[in-house]
Amino acid sequence: MPSRRQLANAIRALAMDAVQQAQSGHPGAPMGMADIAEVLWNDFLRHNPANPHWPNRDRFVLSNGHGSMLIYSLLHLSGYDLTLDTLRNFRQLESGTPGHPEVGDTPGVETTTGPLGQGLANAVGMALAERILAGQFNRPGHMLVDHHTYCFLGDGCLMEGISHEACSLAGTLGLGKLIGIYDDNGISIDGKVRGWFTDDTPARFRAYGWHLVEEVDGHDADAVRAAIEQTRAVTDRPSLICAKTTIGFGAPNVCGTHGVHGAPLGEDEIQASREFLGWEHGPFEIPDDIYEGWDARARGSAAEVEWRETLAAYREAHPELAADFERRMTGDLPAHFAEHARAFIEKAQATGKDDASRKHSQAVLNGFGPYLPELVGGSADLTGSNNTWWSDCTPVSAEDADGNYLFYGVREFGMTAIMNGLALHGGIIPYGGTFLVFSDYARNAVRMAALMGVRSIIVYTHDSIGLGEDGPTHQPIEQLPSLRLIPNLDVWRPCDLTETAVAWQASLERTDGPSALALSRQKLPHQPRQNDEIEAIRRGGYVLREPGAVPEAIVMASGSEVGMAVAAAEALEARGHAVRVVSVPCLERFLAQPKDYREAVLPSAIQARVAVEAATPDSWRALVASESGLVGLRHFGASAPGGTVYEHMGLTTEAVVAALEQQLAN
Amino acid sequence: MPSRRQLANAIRALAMDAVQQAQSGHPGAPMGMADIAEVLWNDFLRHNPANPHWPNRDRFVLSNGHGSMLIYSLLHLSGYDLTLDTLRNFRQLESGTPGHPEVGDTPGVETTTGPLGQGLANAVGMALAERILAGQFNRPGHMLVDHHTYCFLGDGCLMEGISHEACSLAGTLGLGKLIGIYDDNGISIDGKVRGWFTDDTPARFRAYGWHLVEEVDGHDADAVRAAIEQTRAVTDRPSLICAKTTIGFGAPNVCGTHGVHGAPLGEDEIQASREFLGWEHGPFEIPDDIYEGWDARARGSAAEVEWRETLAAYREAHPELAADFERRMTGDLPAHFAEHARAFIEKAQATGKDDASRKHSQAVLNGFGPYLPELVGGSADLTGSNNTWWSDCTPVSAEDADGNYLFYGVREFGMTAIMNGLALHGGIIPYGGTFLVFSDYARNAVRMAALMGVRSIIVYTHDSIGLGEDGPTHQPIEQLPSLRLIPNLDVWRPCDLTETAVAWQASLERTDGPSALALSRQKLPHQPRQNDEIEAIRRGGYVLREPGAVPEAIVMASGSEVGMAVAAAEALEARGHAVRVVSVPCLERFLAQPKDYREAVLPSAIQARVAVEAATPDSWRALVASESGLVGLRHFGASAPGGTVYEHMGLTTEAVVAALEQQLAN
Repeated sequence: MPSRRQLANAIRALAMDAVQQAQSGHPGAPMGMADIAEVLWNDFLRHNPANPHWPNRDRFVLSNGHGSMLIYSLLHLSGYDLTLDTLRNFRQLESGTPGHPEVGDTPGVETTTGPLGQGLANAVGMALAERILAGQFNRPGHMLVDHHTYCFLGDGCLMEGISHEACSLAGTLGLGKLIGIYDDNGISIDGKVRGWFTDDTPARFRAYGWHLVEEVDGHDADAVRAAIEQTRAVTDRPSLICAKTTIGFGAPNVCGTHGVHGAPLGEDEIQASREFLGWEHGPFEIPDDIYEGWDARARGSAAEVEWRETLAAYREAHPELAADFERRMTGDLPAHFAEHARAFIEKAQATGKDDASRKHSQAVLNGFGPYLPELVGGSADLTGSNNTWWSDCTPVSAEDADGNYLFYGVREFGMTAIMNGLALHGGIIPYGGTFLVFSDYARNAVRMAALMGVRSIIVYTHDSIGLGEDGPTHQPIEQLPSLRLIPNLDVWRPCDLTETAVAWQASLERTDGPSALALSRQKLPHQPRQNDEIEAIRRGGYVLREPGAVPEAIVMASGSEVGMAVAAAEALEARGHAVRVVSVPCLERFLAQPKDYREAVLPSAIQARVAVEAATPDSWRALVASESGLVGLRHFGASAPGGTVYEHMGLTTEAVVAALEQQLAN
Repeated sequence: MPSRRQLANAIRALAMDAVQQAQSGHPGAPMGMADIAEVLWNDFLRHNPANPHWPNRDRFVLSNGHGSMLIYSLLHLSGYDLTLDTLRNFRQLESGTPGHPEVGDTPGVETTTGPLGQGLANAVGMALAERILAGQFNRPGHMLVDHHTYCFLGDGCLMEGISHEACSLAGTLGLGKLIGIYDDNGISIDGKVRGWFTDDTPARFRAYGWHLVEEVDGHDADAVRAAIEQTRAVTDRPSLICAKTTIGFGAPNVCGTHGVHGAPLGEDEIQASREFLGWEHGPFEIPDDIYEGWDARARGSAAEVEWRETLAAYREAHPELAADFERRMTGDLPAHFAEHARAFIEKAQATGKDDASRKHSQAVLNGFGPYLPELVGGSADLTGSNNTWWSDCTPVSAEDADGNYLFYGVREFGMTAIMNGLALHGGIIPYGGTFLVFSDYARNAVRMAALMGVRSIIVYTHDSIGLGEDGPTHQPIEQLPSLRLIPNLDVWRPCDLTETAVAWQASLERTDGPSALALSRQKLPHQPRQNDEIEAIRRGGYVLREPGAVPEAIVMASGSEVGMAVAAAEALEARGHAVRVVSVPCLERFLAQPKDYREAVLPSAIQARVAVEAATPDSWRALVASESGLVGLRHFGASAPGGTVYEHMGLTTEAVVAALEQQLAN
């Protein structure tokens, strides 16, 4: 039987060899954390390599994602469907072993990491999902949901601000099954961290209410094992193990320096490392007894079988809850949801009143919420402004996790990355609110949601200069077009209750990516529609108002400017011009429609076109050829009542009329 | 003589009245912090209301910027050029008293705040600027630079991740003249913070190496005075005073609740507050004795006069240093800089070699740096990758501030906001590096730089899929067009050494806003140019290569795709087509050129146009009418060697040739 160190050395060898083969990558972290990983995976981690989607598996997150060869080695060695050839193709096109771990690319990878700190926040989200689901589903004698979330993290994760946001909240919420292991190797890319990172990290985390296990020798398996046992014994607080390690452990000439962080070791140093470690096998060669020491398939399968028995007993005792749990874990919406949504939308059209779209959003939550127990809402300390709270909301707290609302605090980035973790865990559809301008604070987590294809719904209210007096720091100008640039993100900007309801429905029904809802602070007019127009909203753009005669020009708009577009069309109609109004609540969905649909809405023959939106107008250039057809904003806003700011920035019905007249004159 | 409380009540009254008048705003924080502010401003703050730009003034930052009526009241009462009428126009268009404090709008406002946490990071930057300038200029017997930076902050600032980044670094750098005062009122917008914010903040800050003064009664002037004295006595570490206050102190029925945070009190509660506070004066009415108690003009003027004497003595003893100090504080570059830059650029054109533009950037720093002592560089832990270190760099540390390089650690947002503080302080031109994709982490600080018009230069390397193996998490796709959307930000993407040098020069010479440099990881070909082409680079777009015959088509590109554009033009020339190549290193500068220049570069008659850039192509729609003329990226990248990723994403010379041929066929 190989020793623990020998088992760990398999990771070191694979990491050295794969990085060398790719001539690119990060050997330092996998070699430094190999001993810790060996103990965690062989002694504690409950997972089933044959079924990476087993709902009650422990979650493992490598927040220091550059150390991707660590997780690839672990997955390969423990028996996941990840071959040696796949490891040999590390960092090659579509290899299954990309430079940073990507969920969906590699079985067993729970989240995409690399942008530092976000994996840790995702892990907080996963641990929170476990707590919420346990709160919602577990019953006396039935521990249906009961797993740990383990997260490896490095100095970089801890320097990033998001680590503060996520870990502070994790402390407040008492996430006792979250266990972080900090790879305290004293090195970051620029060298020894003491020149720029002198935090007393244990003290910092104690200040968040975490349980700390300090000064653990990360190369002493017994010490690591004892530390993990300690953390599992503390269930009312998250735990952080601070493990002292040597980066690149095993590479005798470069370990402990930043030289080993992110570059291949080179043939000579690899040879020296093999000698130092007593690893006598060739590149990518793992002896059978090492494989046997790592093989987690039998105990993983047994663990899942045991849980399936728990589930069966639960189903017996609580059939409806069990059915709901199983449905939620598949990600399917309730069978009758679409029907309820349709009824809501029909009624919305018939009875909708002029109001702020943020209030419509709340009305939709009140309408849809009762059918969607998987919805878990929240706000970054703007609940009343974002209108994210609906009548059946119950807060999730350290004392009671059987809720569906999170007070995230003033933590936009943390919130968004935690939402990604909630969504990745499964069983939950997260939505969360902040002001649109503060999408900036969270932007990379929005991008990660889009890259991973998770169903997060972000509620961005106060979506234009219409917010008024708070002024340019709070008035989004470039955020709408900027969010639209993120591939695979749907950006909805509805103009009234009906469009808001469709936007919510489309966001909820989407299973392959996130959606953002841009909602107004100010009141907007309700628009009349026929059934086929209602049906067309989900296409992202549609004819909202057709003039009596064949249209000569088209005015298009989104959200709060749709009313202005309608008013401009009416004004021109009074002057004898026939102008079509196209509402575009989701530009990217419209652009993705078949050509004949787009042509029907925006006939090529009609080039007299104006787009109006309270934002930099770049998004609309795909639909409007001439610069003079773009009525938007080109500089920062101003502090004054909303209507005054619109006037001041030249965003008025008169300006839209003038632009249309210019287009008609061309 | 009025009591201290009566002096403080003037702030409370003004805040209540102005918010009531505007029917919008935040009375809670000004009323809660009024007593603290009174002590700080009347007993400690060294400033001269008659000269808000006196270089050695103490800096005061209101990081909880929603409490703007606090600073407006302080400025008015202490004698700045800010009238009662201006206060009456709180939150009205161009009033000088916008909803959140804006630097440039109001004399005495040092930075624009509102986006929470950033004011605190700006304050760290200002304190750091003071330390660096003191290190560079002070000499035995000559304390030319010697002032404090005071920062008020709230729960929101402390929840934001950027507070972690900035305060951790401030601790490491031992910024002893930075004094934060935390308005610990237990309330944020969603209510009592204990539901979402349970940090032991003093312990957290001690973990950063700060000096703490805890449990200060923020309504006891003596206690506040003693606390500030304690912090001023500790000079080797930043200090945080944790002051317990009652939000909305003075409003008897709503104080201590979130109801007083962000809405007018209403006439009844204002009346009740007047009675509670014993404030017998009408709205916006301040009695003379209160004004006298606040008037800081005489002692402010005396303080500046005293410092001017210090400066005179310094000038006597160190004339060259003094001249440099005075020049740097005006923001002017050295008289001969332009000449040196011209010589460098000429030589660059003549001798430039194929290389990565990040390496060119380092070459430019080596060329320009010796003439620019005001340059203070740095990187968010990517010094070697960002090539931000040049030969005369010296690190700034807690022990020695006489340097010009900051190891910011893995703190992109903190770095960018600290850079804003360095620039706002004056005397320093900050530049700092990270990977382009991580501009996302810092985006709102970039926006704030643009909104404030400060000269920050951000070095974004690894600017495309060309970075290769690190994969989609690290490959910017949408960041270039997204940064271009920020008003008043210049985004440069140079293609070779010459363009890189011009981009640096333009960024350095710009005094009204920030610039971002997008630089390649991979090697790029050096381009031939004549003198007039070199001269045209600064216009943002110019004809780089003219075919032998009258051009039939135009191909335009930026940065790493310029070489591809040239290759495509050459390929088409071989097939008998005349294609002009336009290099566009700074799209927004080009779009700002006079029409005749733009027409000369891109004649309307030539509509056969192709733009190629390794990014989402939206930016180029302003110059290219047809969708088929846009060769760019529309989804996330992949992990593989850079060249392979280019192929995989269809970004090849062949694709550009095909697009040009299609355009020519139309």
